Amino acid sequence: MRYELYYWPQIQGRGEYVRLALEEAGADYIDVARKPRGEDKMLHLMQSRAVKTPSFAPPFLKAGKLLIGQTPNILLYLGKHCGLAPKTEAGRLWVHQLQLTIADFVVEIHDTHHPIGSGLYYEEQKPEAERRADDFRAHRAPKFLGYFERVIKASGGPYLTGRRVTYADLSLFQIVAGLNYSFPRMMKRQARKYPHIRSLHDRVAARPRIAAYLKSERRIPFNEMGIFRFYDELDG
Amino acid sequence: MRYELYYWPQIQGRGEYVRLALEEAGADYIDVARKPRGEDKMLHLMQSRAVKTPSFAPPFLKAGKLLIGQTPNILLYLGKHCGLAPKTEAGRLWVHQLQLTIADFVVEIHDTHHPIGSGLYYEEQKPEAERRADDFRAHRAPKFLGYFERVIKASGGPYLTGRRVTYADLSLFQIVAGLNYSFPRMMKRQARKYPHIRSLHDRVAARPRIAAYLKSERRIPFNEMGIFRFYDELDG
Repeated sequence: MRYELYYWPQIQGRGEYVRLALEEAGADYIDVARKPRGEDKMLHLMQSRAVKTPSFAPPFLKAGKLLIGQTPNILLYLGKHCGLAPKTEAGRLWVHQLQLTIADFVVEIHDTHHPIGSGLYYEEQKPEAERRADDFRAHRAPKFLGYFERVIKASGGPYLTGRRVTYADLSLFQIVAGLNYSFPRMMKRQARKYPHIRSLHDRVAARPRIAAYLKSERRIPFNEMGIFRFYDELDG
Repeated sequence: MRYELYYWPQIQGRGEYVRLALEEAGADYIDVARKPRGEDKMLHLMQSRAVKTPSFAPPFLKAGKLLIGQTPNILLYLGKHCGLAPKTEAGRLWVHQLQLTIADFVVEIHDTHHPIGSGLYYEEQKPEAERRADDFRAHRAPKFLGYFERVIKASGGPYLTGRRVTYADLSLFQIVAGLNYSFPRMMKRQARKYPHIRSLHDRVAARPRIAAYLKSERRIPFNEMGIFRFYDELDG
């Protein structure tokens, strides 16, 4: 089956968690909105009254007749069908729980530069962003990173659930890569507290299919339109 | 099986979505943290190194040997085991997608009174909260409510997926009840735009087990510690 991924073509954003899973699985897929007229197709699937299960926002995935929205939901599906999650119900629920916690972290990372409104420019909410980013660096980032560090350690590592990689590991790699880009000083200061997370990041980056993807043109570079933005004043 | 729900005892919060599902299913459950020493038990399950799948935050559910965290993940499990979701994979993914969109809405509702930091008091972020609430009332609430209105209408109603109630309907009921409490003027002004949502709310509230629950002491009243808070200045 050829999967069709629908996501904004200019950014990694939430689509990147899906791209990483498709790439690691060696799946056949098209990143539709990056093709000619692809963005129109995407908007049509969101707005057409003929679509029975429209998404509130991208990303969404077409898998045969299924149209699946919400990043963790797409990964729940791909985890099962592409071998990126355990086969037991307990194992699948645990990996999904980790992914949902990563999704919560993503919202908080995004809101460091958009604490007032996602429809406003960063420049319209700079003082608020600086306050929120202070709180993020001091409290929220250490709380999330400390949690994932503890989970890897408890599993025996090197991944979140032990010896086998899951989609949640690919997402945690993306979080670390993104924080290294957007909060380089914070990450440099805090890095020694998270040896297991750093090692997971390096190990995922070195997996053959991920390494090939990261070097390819399919990987959109980080930029100041996405979730992970480097604004010097927000890094303390 | 007797389920054990773990959540903060003073508020509806995110635990309420789980409580509503357990009540509608007629499930046997204990709201552990509302019992003597229950909060200690909850914190132990979050902090103990002996727990293999610790949650980042409440709520979490003990179901036999399983310990399941993250509200949408708990509902995914209960939907399957308590008959509150379709049996097909396509149906289950769609209901879960709707629940994840409700969860996104919950974050944005919460952040109207806490745009800067969840560890700070409301009084420490009042000007920012007023700006964020303005944006919420003008843009975000209509966008989310408009989406769910459209979904109910497209399904043929009266519920999100048609004639059978799912856990996502119970959660959407809670959203409407909460917004009626926290943004009464906004809801009064906008209500005529969402006839299907209003009717879903009323229909869920009238379901025998839900009606009995809402009248019972098990239903914690809305208050200014939870997600849905009434602050006059945030309602425009």
